Amino acid sequence: MTTDMAEIEARLGYLEDEREVSRLIASYGPLVDSADADGACALWDDDGSYDVEGWRMNSRADVHAMVSSPSHRELVAGGCCHFLGPAVVTVDGDTAVGVCESLVLLRADGTSADRVDSQAWRSAPGEFVVWRATANHFVVKRVEGRWSITARTSRLLDGNAVAHSLLTDGLAGVTRQESCGDQ
Amino acid sequence: MTTDMAEIEARLGYLEDEREVSRLIASYGPLVDSADADGACALWDDDGSYDVEGWRMNSRADVHAMVSSPSHRELVAGGCCHFLGPAVVTVDGDTAVGVCESLVLLRADGTSADRVDSQAWRSAPGEFVVWRATANHFVVKRVEGRWSITARTSRLLDGNAVAHSLLTDGLAGVTRQESCGDQ
Amino acid sequence: MTTDMAEIEARLGYLEDEREVSRLIASYGPLVDSADADGACALWDDDGSYDVEGWRMNSRADVHAMVSSPSHRELVAGGCCHFLGPAVVTVDGDTAVGVCESLVLLRADGTSADRVDSQAWRSAPGEFVVWRATANHFVVKRVEGRWSITARTSRLLDGNAVAHSLLTDGLAGVTRQESCGDQ
Repeated sequence: MTTDMAEIEARLGYLEDEREVSRLIASYGPLVDSADADGACALWDDDGSYDVEGWRMNSRADVHAMVSSPSHRELVAGGCCHFLGPAVVTVDGDTAVGVCESLVLLRADGTSADRVDSQAWRSAPGEFVVWRATANHFVVKRVEGRWSITARTSRLLDGNAVAHSLLTDGLAGVTRQESCGDQ
Repeated sequence: MTTDMAEIEARLGYLEDEREVSRLIASYGPLVDSADADGACALWDDDGSYDVEGWRMNSRADVHAMVSSPSHRELVAGGCCHFLGPAVVTVDGDTAVGVCESLVLLRADGTSADRVDSQAWRSAPGEFVVWRATANHFVVKRVEGRWSITARTSRLLDGNAVAHSLLTDGLAGVTRQESCGDQ
Repeated sequence: MTTDMAEIEARLGYLEDEREVSRLIASYGPLVDSADADGACALWDDDGSYDVEGWRMNSRADVHAMVSSPSHRELVAGGCCHFLGPAVVTVDGDTAVGVCESLVLLRADGTSADRVDSQAWRSAPGEFVVWRATANHFVVKRVEGRWSITARTSRLLDGNAVAHSLLTDGLAGVTRQESCGDQ
């Protein structure tokens, strides 16, 4: 069985593309947990969106503003960990869809206590509480050889159907750019 | 140093196979957390098994029944997250062994409260509790070009020796099809 | 467009190297959670270091001693899970830098209770508590064809700046062998 060079190169290129997209998604947690607003927003396209729990950011500048905001810096100062699981990525030419689940953990005796609307921490000081477990759907596009996020949609895994469809669509490689509202 | 095309293709094929198996394992969490019984059971071979804490499912149909059961749907409705870590995969021809650790998180004020046999949630409402941390060993086989799970064995990381041997065997690429009982 | 064989092989080799390093890092959790001191220390170079929260191990033998210590075995017996997220790896010839975040979870009714300096577990028995969430920076080198850790540096995500620089340096592929102290 012989395989020609063009086929080998196409298969190799597919693995490389998937690796680029996986790496981009895996960089998000370390970037926001070190409050690196420049690095985090650079994952997005100029007019890429991040729609999380009804809060919609519509540009790279909006993502920069979120990561450099007092409320995000307070989370980081108190101790937080945005922990993303391994993404399942489907590449189709210059468009990719990625899906993963993620956790946000906060340190129990941190200044972030007020962020979770609880009167008192139930965990022992120094331990971490899982504030959120979330479904994440990413649309990532390649422009001039560089991959960046054009749309990220994230919903809490609290039983709502939108979170479930983000997971299902993500695994199927559906971009769902049409669907933003929480029906 | 020259390398012939056949060697290049074999090395590329190895990476592709490992990627397929990793992707299959990483799909499990999103599938069960969206209660997608058809998708989840399709990860298994027709007569593939899933042995978890002494509960043994013996076929794809059994996995379908588990994911579509009232108790699983109740977990999903209350908010749950099956969070699998990155798998270490060893491919040998048409057989692969994968190993990873995983967490199951439940939302604290969800209807899933009764599932964990605790009188009252100790975490603040809306936070997530880590119900389980588990060792997972997968045997995945390729039949007619398609990889599917022939055996998954999972045990709680509660100090028991079977959980430890699942991790050790998994990293060594041992299929352990002989060993099912908790000695 | 034609590509010559040498370029294809270089690109393939890069993916293989990154896969080796990712796999090495992903093996750490399963190895220490099964108290496999031989396996865990074999991830390190003979004189590789592991600097965690001011405790500095300076050799493979030191790592072996840590994993086989009574305190680590007590954690394992009570139920623990060292859960590492997907590493972002940058390979440069025979040197690679990896970065990931990690959690350590302990079973609430385990004998590990005393390890966390809390008077009483606040979680229900059988659940897991997140004891630590940590930033990890790895320098991994290839000697005679085999990759091993020459330096791992880990710091709690409790707001300290060293943890943040581990994340930032790790993503940038900076080896930071010069920097060890907590300023």
